[in-house]
Amino acid sequence: MREVSVIGVGMIPFAKYREKTLAEIGWPAVKAAIEDAGVDKKDIEAAYCGSALGGMMSGQRVLKQLGITGLPITNVENACSSSSSAFRQAYIAVAAGVYDVVLVLGVEKLTKFGGGTLPLEKEDFEVTHGLVMPALYGMRARRYMHDYGLTKEQLASVAVKAHKHGAKNEDAQYRNEVTLEEVMNAREIADPFTLLHCCPSGDGASAVVIASAEKARQFTTKPVRVACSEVNSGKYMTGFRDMTTPEITVRGAKQAYEEAAIGPDDVDVAEVHDAFTIAELLYYEALGFCGKGEAARLLEDGETSIGGRIPVNPSGGLLSKGHPIGATGTAQIVEIVRQLRGLAGNRQVDGAKVGLTHCTGGGISGFDHGACSIHMFSV
Amino acid sequence: MREVSVIGVGMIPFAKYREKTLAEIGWPAVKAAIEDAGVDKKDIEAAYCGSALGGMMSGQRVLKQLGITGLPITNVENACSSSSSAFRQAYIAVAAGVYDVVLVLGVEKLTKFGGGTLPLEKEDFEVTHGLVMPALYGMRARRYMHDYGLTKEQLASVAVKAHKHGAKNEDAQYRNEVTLEEVMNAREIADPFTLLHCCPSGDGASAVVIASAEKARQFTTKPVRVACSEVNSGKYMTGFRDMTTPEITVRGAKQAYEEAAIGPDDVDVAEVHDAFTIAELLYYEALGFCGKGEAARLLEDGETSIGGRIPVNPSGGLLSKGHPIGATGTAQIVEIVRQLRGLAGNRQVDGAKVGLTHCTGGGISGFDHGACSIHMFSV
Repeated sequence: MREVSVIGVGMIPFAKYREKTLAEIGWPAVKAAIEDAGVDKKDIEAAYCGSALGGMMSGQRVLKQLGITGLPITNVENACSSSSSAFRQAYIAVAAGVYDVVLVLGVEKLTKFGGGTLPLEKEDFEVTHGLVMPALYGMRARRYMHDYGLTKEQLASVAVKAHKHGAKNEDAQYRNEVTLEEVMNAREIADPFTLLHCCPSGDGASAVVIASAEKARQFTTKPVRVACSEVNSGKYMTGFRDMTTPEITVRGAKQAYEEAAIGPDDVDVAEVHDAFTIAELLYYEALGFCGKGEAARLLEDGETSIGGRIPVNPSGGLLSKGHPIGATGTAQIVEIVRQLRGLAGNRQVDGAKVGLTHCTGGGISGFDHGACSIHMFSV
Repeated sequence: MREVSVIGVGMIPFAKYREKTLAEIGWPAVKAAIEDAGVDKKDIEAAYCGSALGGMMSGQRVLKQLGITGLPITNVENACSSSSSAFRQAYIAVAAGVYDVVLVLGVEKLTKFGGGTLPLEKEDFEVTHGLVMPALYGMRARRYMHDYGLTKEQLASVAVKAHKHGAKNEDAQYRNEVTLEEVMNAREIADPFTLLHCCPSGDGASAVVIASAEKARQFTTKPVRVACSEVNSGKYMTGFRDMTTPEITVRGAKQAYEEAAIGPDDVDVAEVHDAFTIAELLYYEALGFCGKGEAARLLEDGETSIGGRIPVNPSGGLLSKGHPIGATGTAQIVEIVRQLRGLAGNRQVDGAKVGLTHCTGGGISGFDHGACSIHMFSV
């Protein structure tokens, strides 16, 4: 397997683009990534597109707008891990020598599908009984509060940090800073969550160009190395007695660190799947950034803020940057690449050399058919 | 890249399973493929699931029923080429040495989504103006009749052959033979097509287990070699002046024959994408089984019937076996593997050593964002 590098990234600001089609929100992100990579569109040998709800031929629809046709285009769906799973397929194909230059995009338009249009099957008994995502994570939060003494204020401060970071990101959906009081007093969604504990709904697109390390040298003097690529499925929880340990992430992180020969202490910056405030805290622990029960302290000590030991979600994360499902995986990679290139502007993590992205999706309906992807990058 | 073999196949009879969920129709096909391969479910290192309209996490939903979790599961969508595109990703991963044993499944439930629930975007102007699939292929048929003197009777005889083959296939959705008169006199859909010129709507699932050639020897003495794997996108037509030449298939076939170092004359049996009667004739030519304008003669001479020189769609094809979109690609592979193993019963193509599958999807909306997959197999 050959070494693989990211040579270009691009995205559009996440927002609600009610009047635009999926193709219309997708192509500018792709164009930006191609221009950033300095490749000609004819150099792209294959494309992988992640979208959870985009409908048939999402990638073809987007790429047609730019005249990028004739190449193998493959659409990948893995719920929130859609474009990160697409990235893994692209990575395998380049590492294997099948292609030299591959485009990965993520695109999603939730303003069209929003409002619960997904059909429920009879095996979706949890959802039928009310166990939608905010309720599920709300119970995890309550359990964590019980087990580890987490306070509502500490939990709310995850959102404060997210918005503080997101306010510095031109591509974030919500660029306003919020106070602890605003988070605490926002409309209640599912105890202990108010609206600001939950990631917003929106539309977005992001794209990444990868190449074999050898080919990358033709296009850039600043390639970002893909240090590992892991996607797996499995249980969110280790069992009904430990609902605060996301097994799928713990297992994925172990595999990723082994594959990359990089440990959690070596990670300089991370984008993790903070769909809800509690999620970010659980992932600090699952990814090994701190021990079990220590997440709140890590946050309070400012260790996961820009300027801290291991800044998490400098982009604003899902809570502030937004979460157009299929676009999130590659958007995380966009942020980490910007950080490792030192081009993250006023949210730059100084001296970042190793970055990690973590995206996990699904997980309702039996708790055990989620997908989790972890990628690491280095310069 | 390592050599890759198919070691097990399975499917359920295509039908309308109105009372069953996607997961319920999917798992028996997977179970059959695993049993056929003689592997334990723990031997499966990754899974790829093709579905066009299955919704989020189709693969995870199906595999959970069999307790197959924890492995990387990736869902692939490419319209009619969904599970054949999934097969290609699995093939790359095994050929590259990432995994030794991988499961590929295709699953679709059209009885739930039937009736045109796909949202139209504003760029879908052709469909908005009535250019749905039967209309599109109807015009191709009319043009072919004009250019090459094809008669309505000859066109109808494609359906007669399909049902003659399908009647011998326990997994076919329609197992009734039909007469030329029945095809000609059926309800009109889009001139020159009657109902029997069009593939039916239905539900289905199919699955394939592949392994590296070395690993395959542990499980079977009759592996079926994957001779080539091609997926590409592009224009259905070469241009507005030649609407009877499917460019995407012509180009894909050229690549496939080169990759496999096998020519069209070497192909003993093929499953092609006969979504409409005219399609099968166009693909005879695009795949090089005969010259341009010669398809009707090839059919009339019985060359593409079981017993002829190059039997096409011995399974009954999409017209008789059915076309649950995402399940079709792997179902074609199921049939070719059965043929190459000599286990196709009373529809066996004698002495078949080389088989080809061809699946092409999309292609409305600009005519140029389709996907076409061609795979070849040999024993």
